[in-house]
Amino acid sequence: MLSKNTVKFIKSLHQKKYRVESGKFFVEGEKSVVEVLQSDFKVDLLLVTQEFTSKYAQLVDGAGVEVLQVTPNQLEQVGQYQSNDAALAVVHMKPNQAFVPGKEELILALDEVRDPGNLGTIIRIADWYGIQKLIFSPHTADFYNPKVIQASMGSFTRVQFYYGELAEAFQNWKMPVYGAFLEGTSIHQLTDPKPGVLLLGNESQGISKEVEKWVTNKVTIPSFGGAESLNVAIATAIFCDNFKRLLSK
Amino acid sequence: MLSKNTVKFIKSLHQKKYRVESGKFFVEGEKSVVEVLQSDFKVDLLLVTQEFTSKYAQLVDGAGVEVLQVTPNQLEQVGQYQSNDAALAVVHMKPNQAFVPGKEELILALDEVRDPGNLGTIIRIADWYGIQKLIFSPHTADFYNPKVIQASMGSFTRVQFYYGELAEAFQNWKMPVYGAFLEGTSIHQLTDPKPGVLLLGNESQGISKEVEKWVTNKVTIPSFGGAESLNVAIATAIFCDNFKRLLSK
Repeated sequence: MLSKNTVKFIKSLHQKKYRVESGKFFVEGEKSVVEVLQSDFKVDLLLVTQEFTSKYAQLVDGAGVEVLQVTPNQLEQVGQYQSNDAALAVVHMKPNQAFVPGKEELILALDEVRDPGNLGTIIRIADWYGIQKLIFSPHTADFYNPKVIQASMGSFTRVQFYYGELAEAFQNWKMPVYGAFLEGTSIHQLTDPKPGVLLLGNESQGISKEVEKWVTNKVTIPSFGGAESLNVAIATAIFCDNFKRLLSK
Repeated sequence: MLSKNTVKFIKSLHQKKYRVESGKFFVEGEKSVVEVLQSDFKVDLLLVTQEFTSKYAQLVDGAGVEVLQVTPNQLEQVGQYQSNDAALAVVHMKPNQAFVPGKEELILALDEVRDPGNLGTIIRIADWYGIQKLIFSPHTADFYNPKVIQASMGSFTRVQFYYGELAEAFQNWKMPVYGAFLEGTSIHQLTDPKPGVLLLGNESQGISKEVEKWVTNKVTIPSFGGAESLNVAIATAIFCDNFKRLLSK
């Protein structure tokens, strides 16, 4: 049975303050819950409908966590989905640990990307292009925001990330930093990029002055028409596509 | 002065039914209103704040339309923006007229793209890549939906479009139709594309069976990681970028 306290607790996880306090976040919807159960995230509590239980009996039983049977109505009450007839999982956040670049081709860095929908979409794009390591400046949207989780479409389970000062990381990593600007080398003219960091900036301000100092190559998406700019998630996709095309040649 | 009837009328334009009935739609926010005033759209009524009037005196005077001085509060009351301290324009819709392909490199076709945010983002992408002609299947989201206008960031003023049966158009046009599928020729392997139609399908169903018959080349975005798919606007951007790169070689 779903207690009032549990309802209150899950609802509190809509806010970053309570996620940080409890060290937990929630994941909702069939696809994302299945993916988080199959990932290395530690699930704490599972709310499931009868339908979900019958479809994923083995996964639910094997989860080794507290399972509560609920109705779609109850899921919609505690989560943010307007319609959810499957499941919701309360999950432990991972510690914020700095990574060191390995032999991967590309690391994605975000400087103050504020919109959760953009961040989630970017995580999905990174996952599509096999980019597993992401670094976010401290004021980038919160990875565990339910809107980020939703927009990532399960890809949040397959990336490694940390929040930290970009300038500091770039200084330590000593890799080329390809920064996205409205003026720079056209990504269509780039012929021989090296493995490195792909850096995208804030939705309206772009890359901050302090971080710009560490950019070794300014790159841009060539424009053929009248639009002044592209959305940051769209730009990320186009840069990733070009880099992967060139790096896998 | 803003009358109750005008308030009621503008509010009715949030719904497609009343847009169709009146032949009008609305545009809000500084950038979009400025762009629509400078475009070939016929503006019917202009709601402006004092700030907007001082900044764009010439444009407002030269518009030759009824101008009402309003407060930001009033703009927020009639429009969909949570915050709008600039302007809102009521604008005449354009007649739905079929175009014939000219010597342009690329025409963009959408088969049942339902989400207004996706459609608006796609219009902005088309504009960035200089794609001026778009064709939408009958049940694609409404171009004049306020969310489409918002997401297009002014690009809605620079594209030509019509709603019609795609199969019929493709049959008449006799051009290559490049259809986006999860399986097809990798867009990174494509070497010599011809000017033609770039076709994207519905968010969950993809390209419909009936329209698929007219696809001459199935193309796909190569995947390097775990994500199963990409958002349709993201995919459109990646296809446009690759086609423009290859066609302008």
